[in-house]
Amino acid sequence: MKKIVISTGGGDAPGLNAVIYAVVHACYKRGWEVYGSRSGYMGLLDVDELVRLGLDDVEDIYSTGGTIIGSTNKGDPFAMPVENLAGEMTVVDVSDKILHNFRRMRFDCHIAVGGDGSLEIARKFAEKGMPVIGVPKTIDNDLEATDRTFGFDTAVSTATEALDKLHSTAKSHDRVMVVEVMGRDSGWIALYSGISGGADVILIPEIPFDMEKVCEKIMDNALHEKHYAIIVVAEGAVAAGGKVISKGMGEVGRSELLLGGVGEWVASEIRARTGKDTRSLVLGHLQRGGSPTTFDRLLAMRFGAAAVRLIEEKKFGHMVALISPNMSAVPLEDAVKSRKKVDLNNDKVFTAREIGICLGD
Amino acid sequence: MKKIVISTGGGDAPGLNAVIYAVVHACYKRGWEVYGSRSGYMGLLDVDELVRLGLDDVEDIYSTGGTIIGSTNKGDPFAMPVENLAGEMTVVDVSDKILHNFRRMRFDCHIAVGGDGSLEIARKFAEKGMPVIGVPKTIDNDLEATDRTFGFDTAVSTATEALDKLHSTAKSHDRVMVVEVMGRDSGWIALYSGISGGADVILIPEIPFDMEKVCEKIMDNALHEKHYAIIVVAEGAVAAGGKVISKGMGEVGRSELLLGGVGEWVASEIRARTGKDTRSLVLGHLQRGGSPTTFDRLLAMRFGAAAVRLIEEKKFGHMVALISPNMSAVPLEDAVKSRKKVDLNNDKVFTAREIGICLGD
Amino acid sequence: MKKIVISTGGGDAPGLNAVIYAVVHACYKRGWEVYGSRSGYMGLLDVDELVRLGLDDVEDIYSTGGTIIGSTNKGDPFAMPVENLAGEMTVVDVSDKILHNFRRMRFDCHIAVGGDGSLEIARKFAEKGMPVIGVPKTIDNDLEATDRTFGFDTAVSTATEALDKLHSTAKSHDRVMVVEVMGRDSGWIALYSGISGGADVILIPEIPFDMEKVCEKIMDNALHEKHYAIIVVAEGAVAAGGKVISKGMGEVGRSELLLGGVGEWVASEIRARTGKDTRSLVLGHLQRGGSPTTFDRLLAMRFGAAAVRLIEEKKFGHMVALISPNMSAVPLEDAVKSRKKVDLNNDKVFTAREIGICLGD
Amino acid sequence: MKKIVISTGGGDAPGLNAVIYAVVHACYKRGWEVYGSRSGYMGLLDVDELVRLGLDDVEDIYSTGGTIIGSTNKGDPFAMPVENLAGEMTVVDVSDKILHNFRRMRFDCHIAVGGDGSLEIARKFAEKGMPVIGVPKTIDNDLEATDRTFGFDTAVSTATEALDKLHSTAKSHDRVMVVEVMGRDSGWIALYSGISGGADVILIPEIPFDMEKVCEKIMDNALHEKHYAIIVVAEGAVAAGGKVISKGMGEVGRSELLLGGVGEWVASEIRARTGKDTRSLVLGHLQRGGSPTTFDRLLAMRFGAAAVRLIEEKKFGHMVALISPNMSAVPLEDAVKSRKKVDLNNDKVFTAREIGICLGD
Repeated sequence: MKKIVISTGGGDAPGLNAVIYAVVHACYKRGWEVYGSRSGYMGLLDVDELVRLGLDDVEDIYSTGGTIIGSTNKGDPFAMPVENLAGEMTVVDVSDKILHNFRRMRFDCHIAVGGDGSLEIARKFAEKGMPVIGVPKTIDNDLEATDRTFGFDTAVSTATEALDKLHSTAKSHDRVMVVEVMGRDSGWIALYSGISGGADVILIPEIPFDMEKVCEKIMDNALHEKHYAIIVVAEGAVAAGGKVISKGMGEVGRSELLLGGVGEWVASEIRARTGKDTRSLVLGHLQRGGSPTTFDRLLAMRFGAAAVRLIEEKKFGHMVALISPNMSAVPLEDAVKSRKKVDLNNDKVFTAREIGICLGD
Repeated sequence: MKKIVISTGGGDAPGLNAVIYAVVHACYKRGWEVYGSRSGYMGLLDVDELVRLGLDDVEDIYSTGGTIIGSTNKGDPFAMPVENLAGEMTVVDVSDKILHNFRRMRFDCHIAVGGDGSLEIARKFAEKGMPVIGVPKTIDNDLEATDRTFGFDTAVSTATEALDKLHSTAKSHDRVMVVEVMGRDSGWIALYSGISGGADVILIPEIPFDMEKVCEKIMDNALHEKHYAIIVVAEGAVAAGGKVISKGMGEVGRSELLLGGVGEWVASEIRARTGKDTRSLVLGHLQRGGSPTTFDRLLAMRFGAAAVRLIEEKKFGHMVALISPNMSAVPLEDAVKSRKKVDLNNDKVFTAREIGICLGD
Repeated sequence: MKKIVISTGGGDAPGLNAVIYAVVHACYKRGWEVYGSRSGYMGLLDVDELVRLGLDDVEDIYSTGGTIIGSTNKGDPFAMPVENLAGEMTVVDVSDKILHNFRRMRFDCHIAVGGDGSLEIARKFAEKGMPVIGVPKTIDNDLEATDRTFGFDTAVSTATEALDKLHSTAKSHDRVMVVEVMGRDSGWIALYSGISGGADVILIPEIPFDMEKVCEKIMDNALHEKHYAIIVVAEGAVAAGGKVISKGMGEVGRSELLLGGVGEWVASEIRARTGKDTRSLVLGHLQRGGSPTTFDRLLAMRFGAAAVRLIEEKKFGHMVALISPNMSAVPLEDAVKSRKKVDLNNDKVFTAREIGICLGD
Repeated sequence: MKKIVISTGGGDAPGLNAVIYAVVHACYKRGWEVYGSRSGYMGLLDVDELVRLGLDDVEDIYSTGGTIIGSTNKGDPFAMPVENLAGEMTVVDVSDKILHNFRRMRFDCHIAVGGDGSLEIARKFAEKGMPVIGVPKTIDNDLEATDRTFGFDTAVSTATEALDKLHSTAKSHDRVMVVEVMGRDSGWIALYSGISGGADVILIPEIPFDMEKVCEKIMDNALHEKHYAIIVVAEGAVAAGGKVISKGMGEVGRSELLLGGVGEWVASEIRARTGKDTRSLVLGHLQRGGSPTTFDRLLAMRFGAAAVRLIEEKKFGHMVALISPNMSAVPLEDAVKSRKKVDLNNDKVFTAREIGICLGD
């Protein structure tokens, strides 16, 4: 009999509960016990925050968003901000206490579900001797080490649904609709949702954009009697040259843009340059919530089941990864190193260009 | 045989196409012809913008958002902005030309689907002798003259779905989520979606809000181990006294608030006063788009069918209205006069209070 | 301080949990205690089946289908089937024991949420002296005493979504699709979903149908280049004359029809008479499940909040009812007496006919 | 300038219109003309059934189910059933006429979107000298030659949504729900939707099932206080030994089963063996319709864009295939040969077993 503790850390991603569901079921099948550590490592810092997870605790959770064990950021255990008696904030290393509790509770493994921050902490605990298995969580699908991460398909679906809703209004009112989606460093969500949602223009961080090209595309639409346009902008998209030459406004740098968001800026530029009735919208947290899609549920459950298999195989210090069509393991140190950017030779980029979508270049 | 022309004007509302669908079918049944006037009155100003609508043109449209005949605002026909030869904008009255075209095309009636702006124009045409039937369109459901308008149920559903999505993230991360929904003058969308979406606080234009009460409710949640909150704010909500006393910031008036939107302001206040991790989101145009709900499709079709019945009964100069459970007719001059605000004795307000929702007072 | 017990009985209807949510919140506000009686009256028969309901127990339930306290049918407490020592089934009256437990636990009121069966039992308990408030639950929306019941809008939405899905396939393949929906005695679900889902034919129990008329409508579609059709059939629809004259098969009565369901029978008749490629589908339990629509959540919460208000007003022996726009109370004996059938003078029936839908007559 | 004709054949699959959308856009970009051949090869048999497809014809179609050029089965052009003058049905080979029309219209390539039947016909036309590119269409995702086919993700999503809806009812009423999904020869839809929808039992054609094991799983649920169960059955699932030993009914073979469907049979067996309240449902055509998921839209557009690329590369006689992450081409003769069955070493099968799902063995 083994005793496992699982934690979920970082931003929300639909599928976290499906991972927990699969871990609890796969452990139950082996006769193992599972505990959830609330709010990341809090359950290992303060055992009152540990919760026993049986089959009945996870009965319906695979279809729900969020995480039943919480994911509130309490800070890095290796440098945790705490208030001292004088009321001042200092930083202390609580990792020893966490390791001590882990051993005192006789846990056999910690399954750490998280993004690069959480996985880097997991790696440090592995170095300190804690048997750890990582499960990657990034809604942006931008890890080189795994073909896919859960949450991404749901985020893309939410963004695409929003485009569908805006489409009819844009068309009826001859409007340009600019939608800002997640993607600070990579444009995957923008690219996938833009293609699926019939966008005319998709702007991503990997391709600095030229407002002239964007406006040209919008005006070209009129040639075949299409008097509206849908523009998808990743939040990290930037104008060519790292700056934007705006008509009558002089140059503006990125920081200035971000006051109102790049989507709003693009919209105001389009309005000024084309005279079209233009509106913008920021999807924001809508993309992180909701019931995971079928695709994400299945993927998340596969990650969870594979994590338990790795424990059996004693592949500690590794992260579960999808190397299609199989689940595999990569060392935690490799896991979070390299980011998967949108490659301009990617077939989805080809497709976007071939169906006439302007990528801003 | 009669010849009918239909136009749709003003902001988008899911169900416009279902009205057109019903009008075309109800006319087909009677052997009447239907024409659509593109972009409001444009089809009557320039007959190239008239389009014949047969059964096959409307085959699948009842389930779609937007309007197949367009709703771009070209301005008031009684005071239309036009560019003269010198390139200057002037205002001309084109209503005589429209009436002339209407008669020349031998139309028997104009069905004007629109909000208060469009219906007021319809009323003026009725005065000039054009046989007109109005169909009300306001997504805010704020007309005194009719029990319900189409589009509202869809807008509420979109807002509620958004609340559902944000709920799990708020809960997992101990966050306060502030969602700004439509409703400049009335809080119907906020009230309906807030109750249905399990909000803790609902702020509406009809009840000036007190930030102290709002923050008290958020902190009270912790008493029963609820460390998050969902706040729904109608875009027209204002702080008590017409101004807001903000901690450390002095007084701010409404215009200042609206720079970032009242939702953002409420979020920043909550953050400052409670120290809670707080995020805000503006739903905006998402609420006007998408496939109409079943409720709105049925209601819109009833409006359309009733409009055709009124033509048969020669009740020109009237607007179709739902006086439950029947469709009825009210004179156009009464139609747009009075707005239906959220009445504090309304049973939905009672319900909100009884289930512990804070309304800001 | 009062002590309330709530039970949910009979078939599933989306919104049951929203009623429980509102009851628990409205009682919390008053400082009252709420208990749930599992599986109808079981919690009052065997107090181990009673469960205390606090705010945290109902936190997220307003958006979920089913009922958290269960609705398994264990039979009528006034004639409950039990197995005696010899292993034989007998019927015993356990109502005294239930009343005894109710008093012993010092409950002040029982809120019985249920259909006509459960409400009739509630009425008998009221006669015996138990303070009872009824909340109506029928997905068919067929109670004369209340304008609306929760669950109906969700069922209609599910049926309409199914029609939307089948529509594109029917059209692409020139097919006739027959969909059987709920409605043994009344055709409300068929009528509402049929209109909203663009059906060509709607068959309801209130209008005995003539297969000739049905097939005529299907063939007429071809006149305007529509080579497919969508037929919605309520499960209780019957052919004119109480029997069906089928081509080449002689007469078949209703019982025979129901072997494969009336939908399947209608499909086979259409196939035989028109030669069209025809398919049928029974929606069944899909209509009873799922997250309640916004409309149903709000309505259910209003019912729940109103039930608690009635307790305060000591209106025992009454059922909550919606007499638009207010919640009202009707005596339990009147509540379940008369059924609301589809009236042929109903405006929705008018609308259906005017937009060219064949109602089988 | 090239002239392309596209046809869609066989059963419905969400994403057909997205393929057409991408083909039309990718051709427009190259200055090529596209024609749609209605109802498979009909447009090439009778040129009145050819329709010119421009950008405006495909404007909004990527998000819709069905196919705008129709997919009615008129039979195999190499052996087409026709009525002769005497009113008798005979079979004629119309392939020469089709080839003749293809050349007379000066088409450069035929893009044939279809299942194995349509692709086999395409292969024969390629042999006769017609430049053909195939695009695979099977909702069952069972082609060895391509990693994925469009429509499958939508079908799985529809099935999973149905499971979600049934789940709450099953739980509230202590019921067993049996859902029959598509999959005559392979269990992919059942496997994916069953895992994602939290099923207790999944029965697929690849694993002959043992009713004892199925019932054992249902009874085991009670050990952890779960008194309901969800069973997903592929329509082609069979009992171990090719036959079923049913309690009290003797042996029944497969053909007998299929009268009421295997789902209904499984339900009746569970009812008889466990005494549980058991219901069954056949999802049928619901799985083939509706708006394609984001995943399917993107995949379908990639297939469409790749087909046009293949024309440019003159890779006639080939079918587009996804060999992740790139689009590739496989000879038509290899394309339809081998079917991809659920392999028992597949990671999804592992996952199912590890999270405690009974696969009937």
